[in-house]
Amino acid sequence: MASHPGDDPLIGDISEGRVLRAILSRTEPAAQAIVGPGDDAAVIAAASGSVVATTDTLVHGPDFRLAWSSGYDLGWKSAAVNLADIAAMGAAPTALLVALAVPRDTRLSFVTAMADGLRDACAALSPGCAVVGGDLTVSDVLTIAVTALGDLGGRRAVTRSGARQGDVIALAGELGAAAAGLSVLFGRFRDGDRPVPVDRSALDARQLQALQAQLRPTPPIGLGPVAAAAGATAMMDVSDGLGLDAARMADASGVTLALDGSALDALVFAGDRARGVAGGEDHGLLATFPAGVLPPGFRALGVVTERGVAGVLVDGDPIADAGWDPYRDWDATAG
Amino acid sequence: MASHPGDDPLIGDISEGRVLRAILSRTEPAAQAIVGPGDDAAVIAAASGSVVATTDTLVHGPDFRLAWSSGYDLGWKSAAVNLADIAAMGAAPTALLVALAVPRDTRLSFVTAMADGLRDACAALSPGCAVVGGDLTVSDVLTIAVTALGDLGGRRAVTRSGARQGDVIALAGELGAAAAGLSVLFGRFRDGDRPVPVDRSALDARQLQALQAQLRPTPPIGLGPVAAAAGATAMMDVSDGLGLDAARMADASGVTLALDGSALDALVFAGDRARGVAGGEDHGLLATFPAGVLPPGFRALGVVTERGVAGVLVDGDPIADAGWDPYRDWDATAG
Repeated sequence: MASHPGDDPLIGDISEGRVLRAILSRTEPAAQAIVGPGDDAAVIAAASGSVVATTDTLVHGPDFRLAWSSGYDLGWKSAAVNLADIAAMGAAPTALLVALAVPRDTRLSFVTAMADGLRDACAALSPGCAVVGGDLTVSDVLTIAVTALGDLGGRRAVTRSGARQGDVIALAGELGAAAAGLSVLFGRFRDGDRPVPVDRSALDARQLQALQAQLRPTPPIGLGPVAAAAGATAMMDVSDGLGLDAARMADASGVTLALDGSALDALVFAGDRARGVAGGEDHGLLATFPAGVLPPGFRALGVVTERGVAGVLVDGDPIADAGWDPYRDWDATAG
Repeated sequence: MASHPGDDPLIGDISEGRVLRAILSRTEPAAQAIVGPGDDAAVIAAASGSVVATTDTLVHGPDFRLAWSSGYDLGWKSAAVNLADIAAMGAAPTALLVALAVPRDTRLSFVTAMADGLRDACAALSPGCAVVGGDLTVSDVLTIAVTALGDLGGRRAVTRSGARQGDVIALAGELGAAAAGLSVLFGRFRDGDRPVPVDRSALDARQLQALQAQLRPTPPIGLGPVAAAAGATAMMDVSDGLGLDAARMADASGVTLALDGSALDALVFAGDRARGVAGGEDHGLLATFPAGVLPPGFRALGVVTERGVAGVLVDGDPIADAGWDPYRDWDATAG
């Protein structure tokens, strides 16, 4: 809460125009914007003749709790998860559009902190990309729907369906850190069903790292185009857990992904393989490359084989493909 | 409610994958899609080297009531309002992305009806444009955030700031019909603060037309590129009322828009000028053209003059620029 409420009005008490001006004053211009914010629509350069587009929403309750996430955290994360989807196609992000629905009793400072988080995540993960447009409405449930656009630089998009027998399986990023952060939140900062504010001083370095991975993820956005340029045959971002997402890639490609347990363990946060396989929200890049190819930033994880009964094996054994399903996995009371 | 709930499950009881498959099975392929739905992101052709992008959200409560709007209506309207923003830049819509947040107790049939509405609005208003991607989450508040993409066909975007002294002011579409529809809803289909279902048999032809304009608007999307090709100097879609939106164009262009009262009255629904000037959500296209130019589908509304004290005049008198502000204008209980 602000110490000077007069300088930090409630969203419900001021005009949409004033809120938008406050947000836009904190937004960097996008390098590829031909027409920026403020008109009916933005215009973004797409020099290579196509545009990559994705949308992903964070909803208070299923996706975050205000007791745990600041406005800045939410801005950062909503940018990061969408940038990762663009990178996973092998594209460089160019622009974000943000559809924000906020309760009337939200402070303006919360919304501007969100704008700062969006801006800083772009600057840190994908310089030149920025918010070019958006929409602001009131809602009883805080909701942030971000659309990201990207450019393939003349290359073909790298889809999930191109993995071929003999390809190297590789990952950029880590596995299970964001899930470990969620465990820290649920395990230590709850009063019954109710989330309570995080006391960071009570956490050790590993817990802090996990918390950061959950609240302000840093997926390797720049490595998406690197992987594409290196000849990636398939790629996706690991948002719902390696088990589930690798199974999706295997099914789309009609192959089996045979993972090496020791290679897997080297990428798993804090040595917890079960969490590393099932835990979502790390947004690393899972890719396959022709044999002998492994671009910088990627770690080999196994080899693509002929399709067997199971889509994903670890040291020859099928793994459960359970991952994150927002309908199933998180439905406690909001806070 | 479905007569066979077993065939029409609640969203909260089934997997995200099943919901998405049900939606996608009803979606037409987009003519410009290089990679369609189902991967991390879609890829859409942007042959002319840029992409136009906009986002707009409908939130249960401020933007619609489920007692009044069907799933089909919401799908239609969420497409139409975004297509209008693309058209207002002089671009042809190419693709939609839909971020949908629905309560757990929503029926699958409601969501598929929404997909039908999105599809049919695209087919009716902007053939070739279609949903290429989206995101589905659960939320206590039904929220539909649509992002639309479009292509300028090699032309420059038509912004709000290009109106010049001596230009013709013109409008494609009507004024006040959607607001009249809202009046019908609030005036006739409420029980105190609570909206009740619409009995169409109780309405005359004009009321039915107004209701349709409110629930399933048909903005003249194809006329956006027509206006741009004819040399429109400025253009915007009238979403918040002519008074407010014309004032925005006047301010952005540094001119005064001098409207002719009798020309205005000819475009106003049911002869109600006050409602025609203040009422939002018609999504007609307000444009300015060089003297002597008036493309098909546009009706002349006045002339651009040197900037005076007021941004908008009707027969020489300033008009109040009050229009639609979602923070101010609609905050009753939801239903």
